[in-house]
Amino acid sequence: MLIVMTPEAQEEEILAVAARVQSLGYDAKILPGAQRTAVAVTGNQGSVPADRFASLRGVQKVVRVSAPYKLVSREVVPDETVIRFPNGVAIGGSHFQVMAGPCSVENRDQILEVAAEVKDAGATFLRGGAYKPRTSPYAFQGLKLEGLKLLAEAREATGLLVVTELKDTETLPSLVEYADVLQIGARNMQNYALLEAVGKQPRPVLLKRGMSATIKELLMAAEYIVNAGNPNVILCERGIRTFETMTRNTFDVGAIHMLRHLTHLPVIADPSHGIGIWHGVPALARAAVVAGAQGIIVEVHPKPADALSDGPQSLKPKRFRKLMDQIGRLRAAMAEPDA
Amino acid sequence: MLIVMTPEAQEEEILAVAARVQSLGYDAKILPGAQRTAVAVTGNQGSVPADRFASLRGVQKVVRVSAPYKLVSREVVPDETVIRFPNGVAIGGSHFQVMAGPCSVENRDQILEVAAEVKDAGATFLRGGAYKPRTSPYAFQGLKLEGLKLLAEAREATGLLVVTELKDTETLPSLVEYADVLQIGARNMQNYALLEAVGKQPRPVLLKRGMSATIKELLMAAEYIVNAGNPNVILCERGIRTFETMTRNTFDVGAIHMLRHLTHLPVIADPSHGIGIWHGVPALARAAVVAGAQGIIVEVHPKPADALSDGPQSLKPKRFRKLMDQIGRLRAAMAEPDA
Amino acid sequence: MLIVMTPEAQEEEILAVAARVQSLGYDAKILPGAQRTAVAVTGNQGSVPADRFASLRGVQKVVRVSAPYKLVSREVVPDETVIRFPNGVAIGGSHFQVMAGPCSVENRDQILEVAAEVKDAGATFLRGGAYKPRTSPYAFQGLKLEGLKLLAEAREATGLLVVTELKDTETLPSLVEYADVLQIGARNMQNYALLEAVGKQPRPVLLKRGMSATIKELLMAAEYIVNAGNPNVILCERGIRTFETMTRNTFDVGAIHMLRHLTHLPVIADPSHGIGIWHGVPALARAAVVAGAQGIIVEVHPKPADALSDGPQSLKPKRFRKLMDQIGRLRAAMAEPDA
Amino acid sequence: MLIVMTPEAQEEEILAVAARVQSLGYDAKILPGAQRTAVAVTGNQGSVPADRFASLRGVQKVVRVSAPYKLVSREVVPDETVIRFPNGVAIGGSHFQVMAGPCSVENRDQILEVAAEVKDAGATFLRGGAYKPRTSPYAFQGLKLEGLKLLAEAREATGLLVVTELKDTETLPSLVEYADVLQIGARNMQNYALLEAVGKQPRPVLLKRGMSATIKELLMAAEYIVNAGNPNVILCERGIRTFETMTRNTFDVGAIHMLRHLTHLPVIADPSHGIGIWHGVPALARAAVVAGAQGIIVEVHPKPADALSDGPQSLKPKRFRKLMDQIGRLRAAMAEPDA
Repeated sequence: MLIVMTPEAQEEEILAVAARVQSLGYDAKILPGAQRTAVAVTGNQGSVPADRFASLRGVQKVVRVSAPYKLVSREVVPDETVIRFPNGVAIGGSHFQVMAGPCSVENRDQILEVAAEVKDAGATFLRGGAYKPRTSPYAFQGLKLEGLKLLAEAREATGLLVVTELKDTETLPSLVEYADVLQIGARNMQNYALLEAVGKQPRPVLLKRGMSATIKELLMAAEYIVNAGNPNVILCERGIRTFETMTRNTFDVGAIHMLRHLTHLPVIADPSHGIGIWHGVPALARAAVVAGAQGIIVEVHPKPADALSDGPQSLKPKRFRKLMDQIGRLRAAMAEPDA
Repeated sequence: MLIVMTPEAQEEEILAVAARVQSLGYDAKILPGAQRTAVAVTGNQGSVPADRFASLRGVQKVVRVSAPYKLVSREVVPDETVIRFPNGVAIGGSHFQVMAGPCSVENRDQILEVAAEVKDAGATFLRGGAYKPRTSPYAFQGLKLEGLKLLAEAREATGLLVVTELKDTETLPSLVEYADVLQIGARNMQNYALLEAVGKQPRPVLLKRGMSATIKELLMAAEYIVNAGNPNVILCERGIRTFETMTRNTFDVGAIHMLRHLTHLPVIADPSHGIGIWHGVPALARAAVVAGAQGIIVEVHPKPADALSDGPQSLKPKRFRKLMDQIGRLRAAMAEPDA
Repeated sequence: MLIVMTPEAQEEEILAVAARVQSLGYDAKILPGAQRTAVAVTGNQGSVPADRFASLRGVQKVVRVSAPYKLVSREVVPDETVIRFPNGVAIGGSHFQVMAGPCSVENRDQILEVAAEVKDAGATFLRGGAYKPRTSPYAFQGLKLEGLKLLAEAREATGLLVVTELKDTETLPSLVEYADVLQIGARNMQNYALLEAVGKQPRPVLLKRGMSATIKELLMAAEYIVNAGNPNVILCERGIRTFETMTRNTFDVGAIHMLRHLTHLPVIADPSHGIGIWHGVPALARAAVVAGAQGIIVEVHPKPADALSDGPQSLKPKRFRKLMDQIGRLRAAMAEPDA
Repeated sequence: MLIVMTPEAQEEEILAVAARVQSLGYDAKILPGAQRTAVAVTGNQGSVPADRFASLRGVQKVVRVSAPYKLVSREVVPDETVIRFPNGVAIGGSHFQVMAGPCSVENRDQILEVAAEVKDAGATFLRGGAYKPRTSPYAFQGLKLEGLKLLAEAREATGLLVVTELKDTETLPSLVEYADVLQIGARNMQNYALLEAVGKQPRPVLLKRGMSATIKELLMAAEYIVNAGNPNVILCERGIRTFETMTRNTFDVGAIHMLRHLTHLPVIADPSHGIGIWHGVPALARAAVVAGAQGIIVEVHPKPADALSDGPQSLKPKRFRKLMDQIGRLRAAMAEPDA
């Protein structure tokens, strides 16, 4: 349930509403908005008595929220979330960003070379895995702490922000120290201990859709993070598992639209995992952009054939540069008046 | 297997190759191309002895075709298929077309109104179901022959070409008489009797991907039609069945890219069935266009709330017009030099 | 809607109810039962006025049927359908039958040998494809009419009933002449022209679940057949298409239970297509039997390595015989008092 | 790769082989068997030079293992794993066990009542969730430590062993203290930090298949645990996510057979989550048993309508007792000589 305050409501009135909510045994979350503040009521198993709030001072209306996700819903928070970084980069709302880099950080030369290339092509974030969750215990598991340090060095060299995957709560402090955005991978989308942990630290979170997660479950996973205290969650469509085997996953471009429709959080796309074949990555990236994605995350590697992981789906820097040009044109075409 | 002739090969040399193929118990199909002609060898269970052809006059090389589909493969026919209609409209290669109209032809006023609207917005084909395959035997099954006649009347009034679904072999003669393109629906993609029947009649065929068909199976279904004698097949991605229930289907935009990569046949998209919700149709249509679709087929209805079928996914004419404008901009942006 | 008559209702009262239904523009179907007769009202788009029937003579109650399928529903017809053949064999209710034989009829020796083997092991039906729907137009398409004649010869020799697949309406008269049960394959489950055609001929129909059909859609497909006039439909679970690739399909044993729960029609299982690997067939067959299947259909071939189709999933006669023994024991265990 | 020793090989010969493996930069794992010992070579990215081991003393043969999973494979370890508990209960090989109890531990009376009931009906393990992973952050998350203590109390009262779910590494010490088997839930099947953690503690692990995990991925997840040091892993089929919505999941009974075929680890089934509807649980449980499951885990609740979670799929004690009786009969039928 959502208790919407009048635009003129005073802070003390808002706090009084929150206190009443808590006195009835529920949780209250104060949601400031551009126009007016609202108080979300959560933690209720059954229905909440709306009439206990409707007559309080400063309350404009009491709205029942039909979706099981509350804090991430546009019903509850109509203003789009824009996440702003110290270097001035922003994502969400009308702000579009490109994240690029290798699947894994492999060595110093590799990451510095890719960083320089993708920066030059227009990316604003460097991606790269330091702690790699792998299907096989015998596969390359990443450079770990050394990888984080190399990412930080690449940031120093280029000004790019760093996004890298968090595998577990043990390594969380290191990632908070070295990374700008913490990625929760598809396999961990319903690892609730991890969701709660990233909800209690200061970095924005890039939450990837699980390979068989519904759109609603992705929103519920985001709800865990926001409910734990971190409002800065970026959602990422990266393809789902279906019967089709020709592509690595089935990229659900319709989910991008539905997510934009349902939530105020930024929504981006990972076309590399979405198709799993380098020559298909540009087509999916373009599709994501015109379907409403507010960013893309793309695997770029100087020598895909030598990559320690995900080589077949990595773009060479030259091909990435061409994609950046196409995206620029498409975004311009979408932005024309009357478009 | 494919026997590629030299550019200078004479017709008698080509016929001699085909005769040798047949004398060995296989089927030969002569495939003329812009640069050179090839002879496809089909009907073989095991391997074909390549050395029986390599030394014939006019033969440049003998190529083993790895895919189970032959005649529809780019490996076999590198030139893209362009289907040209008597009124000058063409689809395939660089020719892009929009097909629009209601799910079902409901009455004369409805179909004439929609036809005029979509024509005015820039569509070149009118879609509309006369014979409707429905999950329930108690649901509206279409106006049948009367529906075909109304479509033909709308064609007279607007100059639009008519595309409509073929349900069975019994009604094939009527569809050949009244329609310009015969649609094979998703549920019939592996109805081989129907595929062979449309392979032996003169109209181009719009073949929709089955709801759980792989990309390879779609190509094999097209192979049935082409092998039966009809080279004019348009493939259509319309979403597949997955675990996601928020959208009617999961639109596989990656399949559009893969199909363009694998086959010379035209590839279009049906965003209406792809998402099943009107407000998502434009996003999917745009995504399909920039991923490489050579056309789209969209459900448009003047009063979606009153539609006898598929109302929730139908666009109003005004919204369709806006989509046409967006598509024009995106196609222009894609076509810019260096893009 | 269902109009349930009293146990004492006279035939003239039943006919009067049906006449009233038709006079209001609906279709009436008289459903005799062991205890009492009912009249099903179909063909209605919206709601039917129950009060127009409740007061007629002989009417006990008027029941709204919530499911979209009516004639196949247990809600409507509580007595289980038992299909009886002229040779005394029955399937449905407590009658369990085994259908066995090769995927394709390949030649006279093969089919006569298999028929003798499976008969001796206890099967009562011989399965074998004469008209084969194949994914590739270049694959073996069956012996066609000659195959039907060989099946009939095997019936003469063994007394087994013959079940074989119907591909299209053109070959329907031949199948009605030579076969005892007409099989609609998974790819044709929503080929409505075919469903209506088998609804108008006298042979029982074995309807296989489509590879991505829901349980509800399978019931709706059966509804087409029964609504067209043929009440003798056997439903068959044969595995569905999922992301798992190690097995040919994912055998949905839960669907067997759900179908038994929802419909009065006989339900059987095809473990051969369900797993696609011979050594898994007995496990699935056993599972189907204890989950409630009233029959199984199994591929048996004397020399699986030489089979023209489905060799990898065919049992040798000796292994089939052992399976028959296991099934007998399990059925006995299930039938014990208090079980 | 697997280095198989002769039956007469001495311990010093085995250790010498392991030392040679490690000296070449690989990991060696000694696998004692009933007949002979083997040394598994893991940690290799490329191929291992077999000839460096073949001539060592006591080596019988060197076998390349084709599957990506090694330690859990029957190729590597032909003897079936039997896990034995201090109270004499064993699972695996020919030992079959039933685990039963409520989804969540709700209060002292509930868990003690259920424990007494399921014990009396023949179960040997009590299941019950203390830490509950839930899709919504607002749903009941379990009694946590208090729940563990109640489970331990129920063990004292009944002699049942306790199996309960582990959500994260933080609570691992408590679970090791109070539980006999640690369950890794479907959502955590690829939570590699958790897999490695349970690999380093002494309790047997019940590893549930992820809702969209392939059979191979399940085996790879088990490989993580065994590779980390814990050989006692029980695999559990609990249904996968498909397009079918009538049942909660699609229970993959074929996976039970395939797992038994591929691995030496015990394989059990969870029919409650497999179908999600109480009246379907017995059918699936029976199917699992005759397909080869070495145990089942079933939700039982004295008052399903009042359950805090999973009420609709919980059996009442009386119905559970009847199921136990059926299972006993079926297992007896399977065990008869010649069966």
